Amino acid sequence: MILDGKKISEEILSDLKEKINKLNLTLAVIQIGDNQSSNVYINQKKKLCNKLNIDFNHQKFPLDISEKEVLDLIDSLNKDKTTGILLQLPIPNQINAEKLQNRINYKKDVDGLNDVNKCNLINNKPGIVPCTAKGIITLLNKYDIEIAGKNVVVVGRSNLVGKPISNLLLKKDATVTVCHSKTKDLAKFTLEADILIAATGIKHLITSSMIRKDAVIIDVGISKIDGKLYGDVDFENVKNKSSYITPVPGGVGPMTIASLAENLYEAYILQKEE
Amino acid sequence: MILDGKKISEEILSDLKEKINKLNLTLAVIQIGDNQSSNVYINQKKKLCNKLNIDFNHQKFPLDISEKEVLDLIDSLNKDKTTGILLQLPIPNQINAEKLQNRINYKKDVDGLNDVNKCNLINNKPGIVPCTAKGIITLLNKYDIEIAGKNVVVVGRSNLVGKPISNLLLKKDATVTVCHSKTKDLAKFTLEADILIAATGIKHLITSSMIRKDAVIIDVGISKIDGKLYGDVDFENVKNKSSYITPVPGGVGPMTIASLAENLYEAYILQKEE
Repeated sequence: MILDGKKISEEILSDLKEKINKLNLTLAVIQIGDNQSSNVYINQKKKLCNKLNIDFNHQKFPLDISEKEVLDLIDSLNKDKTTGILLQLPIPNQINAEKLQNRINYKKDVDGLNDVNKCNLINNKPGIVPCTAKGIITLLNKYDIEIAGKNVVVVGRSNLVGKPISNLLLKKDATVTVCHSKTKDLAKFTLEADILIAATGIKHLITSSMIRKDAVIIDVGISKIDGKLYGDVDFENVKNKSSYITPVPGGVGPMTIASLAENLYEAYILQKEE
Repeated sequence: MILDGKKISEEILSDLKEKINKLNLTLAVIQIGDNQSSNVYINQKKKLCNKLNIDFNHQKFPLDISEKEVLDLIDSLNKDKTTGILLQLPIPNQINAEKLQNRINYKKDVDGLNDVNKCNLINNKPGIVPCTAKGIITLLNKYDIEIAGKNVVVVGRSNLVGKPISNLLLKKDATVTVCHSKTKDLAKFTLEADILIAATGIKHLITSSMIRKDAVIIDVGISKIDGKLYGDVDFENVKNKSSYITPVPGGVGPMTIASLAENLYEAYILQKEE
């Protein structure tokens, strides 16, 4: 069965639209350079904003911008009426991404990558959760897929996806295994997974022989090769062996976008409570 | 083979003694109430301080103390010449442990439980690491037990031990599985572990049939029943099947104490750099 992220995302957004429509929210996206994938992702965010009547403030800097100029922009966005601020990755090496993320007011940190929000997550306290991790949990919930007591294997340990989703799943009482590039015999672990979450960006890393029959497969990875998109999972071969599976595209991607809208609304509520 | 925490701890402390001896360091321990286990642990810390010529400042409050009074004490310890501040758990329910821990200057937070230090750990940045987790890594290192690429199973997900040790192991390239009270079929996971870390406080939870032959067994748990100490591992039955094993007492306990001394020295260095 296909986990239809596109459909669920549209449901969430149509619910949110009523709440958000007249609030005059603003999303600021900071881009440094002209990375092609970033352009695609930023365009998706722009479309989201158009759909929900959110002001979209795209701040695009040249690659050789100084850290100070970006910090100054963040300081001013922190002070003005902007609801959410997002730093589009990747950024060039001369600039410290963590420093910028921590400069964003945690109540406007719709990516959930500020240390305050990271700490809230590990401390089991409410806070803004990274969009992809949040979207995966929402998707599992919408399909009534139980998490508590399940053996969940996460492949990938990035700050953006692997680590936050592992923490969320642990909080929801899953038994969580984190695998990565240094894992020996990856299949030994993936074969045991009730729920397998692949977040590596390696095309078709997960094949049919590596999954348990009737496992739930969540594919976070996206690689673009010769203009075509591939997930971490060899979808065509895995789909009949799994019980549920996300397609690429149309699975986790739209859920990430829906979560961004939810985070923006949460940011609005947090700031209103001030 | 026994992982002799007592011996390694003494080696570490004798090295540290030379560095620390003339520095006039101070450790402040805050206790609320009169919990018997706390008394035992505090006594161990007092002995450590005597041994290394560290001033020991034991601040003991009655159970019905207000949160404000403890916060005021922390504020004054943050400002004075105190090197390290430690909040002995458990504390009564009317007081928020996290709030107190976050009030401690992170450079004096020798328990590593301040949000700044927690975040440094997940962000792979230097910081003060919780003593037990640090002691386990040191013990494995001293016995040249490889961590990278190993299948490590951690039983227990506490903020004090389970979570920090999982993060440290992941940083050191282990494949890490976190099990807990909601894990179904615990033995299925423990049987696969190259290194098993038990941190539940449940007497003899881990039996011989639950471990792989030649696994490395780290026993963090301590339960006191009728005046006798028990670990999480059924030591007598497990010891011949494992390759390395920590005894209780004399394994992880002394390593925790040695790590506290190391953290105190680190706190001194951090404050000196100011």
